[in-house]
Amino acid sequence: MIILLKREANKEDVRRLREDLMERGFSLHESTGTVESLIGVVGDTSTLDIGTIEARDCVDQVKRIAEPYKSVNRKMHPENTVIDVRGHKFGDGSLQIIAGPCSVETEEQIMSTARAVKEAGATMLRGGAFKPRTSPYAFQGLEADGIKLLLKAREETGLPIVTEIMGVEDLPLFEDIDVIQVGARNMQNFKLLKALGKVKKPILLKRGLANTIEELLMSAEYITAGGNAEVILCERGIRTFETMTRNTLDISAVSLMKQKSHLPVCADPSHATGILSLIEPMSLSLIVAGADALEIEVHCTPTRALSDGSQQLTPTAFTELMVNIRKMAEFLGRKIG
Amino acid sequence: MIILLKREANKEDVRRLREDLMERGFSLHESTGTVESLIGVVGDTSTLDIGTIEARDCVDQVKRIAEPYKSVNRKMHPENTVIDVRGHKFGDGSLQIIAGPCSVETEEQIMSTARAVKEAGATMLRGGAFKPRTSPYAFQGLEADGIKLLLKAREETGLPIVTEIMGVEDLPLFEDIDVIQVGARNMQNFKLLKALGKVKKPILLKRGLANTIEELLMSAEYITAGGNAEVILCERGIRTFETMTRNTLDISAVSLMKQKSHLPVCADPSHATGILSLIEPMSLSLIVAGADALEIEVHCTPTRALSDGSQQLTPTAFTELMVNIRKMAEFLGRKIG
Amino acid sequence: MIILLKREANKEDVRRLREDLMERGFSLHESTGTVESLIGVVGDTSTLDIGTIEARDCVDQVKRIAEPYKSVNRKMHPENTVIDVRGHKFGDGSLQIIAGPCSVETEEQIMSTARAVKEAGATMLRGGAFKPRTSPYAFQGLEADGIKLLLKAREETGLPIVTEIMGVEDLPLFEDIDVIQVGARNMQNFKLLKALGKVKKPILLKRGLANTIEELLMSAEYITAGGNAEVILCERGIRTFETMTRNTLDISAVSLMKQKSHLPVCADPSHATGILSLIEPMSLSLIVAGADALEIEVHCTPTRALSDGSQQLTPTAFTELMVNIRKMAEFLGRKIG
Amino acid sequence: MIILLKREANKEDVRRLREDLMERGFSLHESTGTVESLIGVVGDTSTLDIGTIEARDCVDQVKRIAEPYKSVNRKMHPENTVIDVRGHKFGDGSLQIIAGPCSVETEEQIMSTARAVKEAGATMLRGGAFKPRTSPYAFQGLEADGIKLLLKAREETGLPIVTEIMGVEDLPLFEDIDVIQVGARNMQNFKLLKALGKVKKPILLKRGLANTIEELLMSAEYITAGGNAEVILCERGIRTFETMTRNTLDISAVSLMKQKSHLPVCADPSHATGILSLIEPMSLSLIVAGADALEIEVHCTPTRALSDGSQQLTPTAFTELMVNIRKMAEFLGRKIG
Repeated sequence: MIILLKREANKEDVRRLREDLMERGFSLHESTGTVESLIGVVGDTSTLDIGTIEARDCVDQVKRIAEPYKSVNRKMHPENTVIDVRGHKFGDGSLQIIAGPCSVETEEQIMSTARAVKEAGATMLRGGAFKPRTSPYAFQGLEADGIKLLLKAREETGLPIVTEIMGVEDLPLFEDIDVIQVGARNMQNFKLLKALGKVKKPILLKRGLANTIEELLMSAEYITAGGNAEVILCERGIRTFETMTRNTLDISAVSLMKQKSHLPVCADPSHATGILSLIEPMSLSLIVAGADALEIEVHCTPTRALSDGSQQLTPTAFTELMVNIRKMAEFLGRKIG
Repeated sequence: MIILLKREANKEDVRRLREDLMERGFSLHESTGTVESLIGVVGDTSTLDIGTIEARDCVDQVKRIAEPYKSVNRKMHPENTVIDVRGHKFGDGSLQIIAGPCSVETEEQIMSTARAVKEAGATMLRGGAFKPRTSPYAFQGLEADGIKLLLKAREETGLPIVTEIMGVEDLPLFEDIDVIQVGARNMQNFKLLKALGKVKKPILLKRGLANTIEELLMSAEYITAGGNAEVILCERGIRTFETMTRNTLDISAVSLMKQKSHLPVCADPSHATGILSLIEPMSLSLIVAGADALEIEVHCTPTRALSDGSQQLTPTAFTELMVNIRKMAEFLGRKIG
Repeated sequence: MIILLKREANKEDVRRLREDLMERGFSLHESTGTVESLIGVVGDTSTLDIGTIEARDCVDQVKRIAEPYKSVNRKMHPENTVIDVRGHKFGDGSLQIIAGPCSVETEEQIMSTARAVKEAGATMLRGGAFKPRTSPYAFQGLEADGIKLLLKAREETGLPIVTEIMGVEDLPLFEDIDVIQVGARNMQNFKLLKALGKVKKPILLKRGLANTIEELLMSAEYITAGGNAEVILCERGIRTFETMTRNTLDISAVSLMKQKSHLPVCADPSHATGILSLIEPMSLSLIVAGADALEIEVHCTPTRALSDGSQQLTPTAFTELMVNIRKMAEFLGRKIG
Repeated sequence: MIILLKREANKEDVRRLREDLMERGFSLHESTGTVESLIGVVGDTSTLDIGTIEARDCVDQVKRIAEPYKSVNRKMHPENTVIDVRGHKFGDGSLQIIAGPCSVETEEQIMSTARAVKEAGATMLRGGAFKPRTSPYAFQGLEADGIKLLLKAREETGLPIVTEIMGVEDLPLFEDIDVIQVGARNMQNFKLLKALGKVKKPILLKRGLANTIEELLMSAEYITAGGNAEVILCERGIRTFETMTRNTLDISAVSLMKQKSHLPVCADPSHATGILSLIEPMSLSLIVAGADALEIEVHCTPTRALSDGSQQLTPTAFTELMVNIRKMAEFLGRKIG
């Protein structure tokens, strides 16, 4: 961390600042120029509050140099983290395809969709039992019953289950779930993140609507700092001024997160675009950009869906998509599953 | 809701769509033009999923006409909602000034700050016991002990307490708190909103970093739909491309929310700007724009603060600010308190 | 400017970097820590390209410390710039109200609107002769004929004219215009800015849709660096994710630009919000925030307007607005005109 | 276009609205429901100003149904536009690689870079002679001399030249240039677009920093409406809240523009990301997403560049990139050149 002092800084103020920092165990190296004087602060500055230092009269600006994320930082841990979910791996170069409906609606719907995506080549099943909806009047999910139906679908198809949690109090219901998903709107629900740090299960952590890559890494750090090293980052589109697509899919974030962190990275082209005709080109682009997994919405009858019908593929369309995903994976020398 | 049909729409598909909507109790009025044909859907369309209708082959686009928020909509309830907190009112034209530190840190800090803001003319005390922090390594708040210190400060100063909740499981700790705040990062924590719909206490609901005004109103609707009509909306800056201010304070949102909804509106110039020299001009502008309350950060010793030091006013600066707030309130014929 | 070196920086590379900088006349002060080593570069670094320095193998990051704007920086010129337009002043504490239609459409329209705004108390007349329109099929303005009509309106009413230029080649037509406006879409039309640096007339420079405050100041610097010191900055709303207002009016930018620069600041609540009912509260808030001038759209018959009808006030509504503007100006001790 | 009437609309007002629209040649189809009444307007509504209709007392909202772009719309012209530049084609499925330095700096620099990119397999040469720079103190380009050097490089290497124009007045200098580029900051410089509509040369039109896809298509429409059908659209990153990348590359826009328009689409991963390590993954993703061309910055000695050094590839790095681009093109069955 670098502290820039004001030109007219009072010497006594600077002396006190210096002392306070040294008392807290930091070592300092200073540099006094004719125009700018600065103090370099060495040590674990992740506990220092920039604003509080800037509140001092003698300080002009504070610039953080070191990245504030540590355990998820590739610099600290150069090897990929590999997460094993019933034999399917994230982070070892293979590609996981997590498919299924937006919401679990009925037994027939989830079973027939699960069979269809398995048949087409998906490696895991997704489906929402708890649904975060903008409107309190919209369908809110089957909750505990939805979880049961997902487990039933796993029993029949063997596909591991990825499903979203919305509150700490529901954790007991997720005991048999394979991967717990944290949705975009909960990316900075720090209570939930802390609770998931104590869980012995992989967490699929989605980037918030307007959260930076650094903030996503810091949220992952909440989980890893709590003791759970198995975090899968997930890009799902960010909110921008563009309205033609639902969100703006930030594919560069996928490549950049693979470089900055050792954690596996997933991406969700369905939520990111909200447009059926974009799901194939975006899926293939994401694979090329280095995604370890894709989450894709498939519904046995999208026109009957209780949520997000317009972005869910039919089984037929998903089967065609898988043909092209397989070709691309083969070209890149990556195994699906 | 208006459904635009595709030019080449299959008649049988359209017939089925029409039937399905009528079965669900909607009445339809149709209009067939040479270029565009459309179906107007009349009834409570807030339960209809736009995407699922757009998933049908015969449909080109769906446009929602009616505002999706109902109980918080001024059209449904033209009179201002007035919320009474120990005799201080939100929404009757008076102005509440909620001041205090970002975080409760020590007994001495909260007591001396509480005395100072009371002395300067604040009408309520704010202070964070549970702190949402981007970094797991940053100070996370005194939690239950912080709540106790706030209640002690109320005992001495008589100022009602506004403080933030971060999870449903902490609700019992808020029993004696006067106003429960929901922070920006939890604006779409729907589990929490539902729980607060069952509480008999005013809720100060902050706009999310990248949430639209409509989404904020829908989140308020979660609380009111649950049975708690006492919601105070709060503008606290949105995330934009601008980096010179911490966030972009959307003052037009304050005026617009007063027009669209009957709920009282608060604003937080401290978090919105992150810049001390902007707090006075923004506070006065917000009052002019119609804010019912302001939330302002004040700390007895900002350079010792454990969080956000750079945006917290000293008691002296807050006292000067209050002089100008009082003049403006007087000019506008508004009572403080 | 501070250059952070990589930990593993090659000494020979660092030596060459140091030499190159000194050859270009900079003086350096270095600081070698155990964790980070850095070089402070002293001199006029506004000519240095950050990217080119970062391209060197030995460099980790480059951080600019000094503000890149100079002649418009209040630090360099603490006194307000005061611009006199036919006796009306910008920057001396008085308030200018620039009113008129979005576009000049007909002689009758501009004359009757000019008379009405004059009568209501406006101090200058605005009106577009050249109109930047998203669609090539929309009304593009009366061009040279529009300029003539504006001058005729000035002749009758005595109101100075503010009107927009869209290209260098039209400059001769603006010879008798009082204030030349540069629209948001041309804020970084550097050819135009350079040409306006050679003009002896005040320039009203609007902030671009997605341009930062710093970029607006840099665009002003293009004009002042060319020799024309009379620049009025103008906030007109920025593009964000919010869709309920046309743009997001950044009132904090008005206060901040007054602090960072000595140039006068105008604001345009009509374009910023696009909503009639917001024009009054935003106008008053902007005055409180320190705006030296407001630009407000008024049309004698908005329902007949060729552009932007929905945000243009009628003369009656403008007259009512002026009553409240006058009261606020009086309260603040500011003179209109 | 659909006009929603207010519930309490005055009948006489509605009658007048109806008459005015019919007088202008539109045909109307109306639908009167118990809740909402609406008027569908049929005809070329691209000339109607939404705001002016919304200014009427009887009107609640106006919704545009038809896309406002016509000649660039794939619905009007289903076949791809193919643009031939000295035998290299855009839009026929082949892939053009436009490489070269950010700025033309010296004869030696442009010649050696041109030779290097030719050798590595680039099909066209880019290089800025006129440089739009945020700061007036930064290098502004060699202007006319830069154009001459580019032509010299074409003479030696045979590579067609792509270079940026900044003002109408410079058009004569571009007579021998192969493709004229319009930069992001000039995407809505409508004077320039109109002038380019009269030119007989392909135009590479870059998306503005904060312009929607629809606005980019409308700017292309300015050129095609003027008579020049040869427009290449270019995605180059948009401005969002994310700061880790320079801009956010919107790869979904590339696929979507190929669907919505028949024009060829180029993309610029260098400006979009500003990060060397992202250029390869983004280039490959863009090709997969359907880009007809890539524009990539290469400089013989990036550490000596006068602009944007950090994002320019060395010839060696570009040569390696081309190896992977060739493999991907081959896999997709696309020819380079």
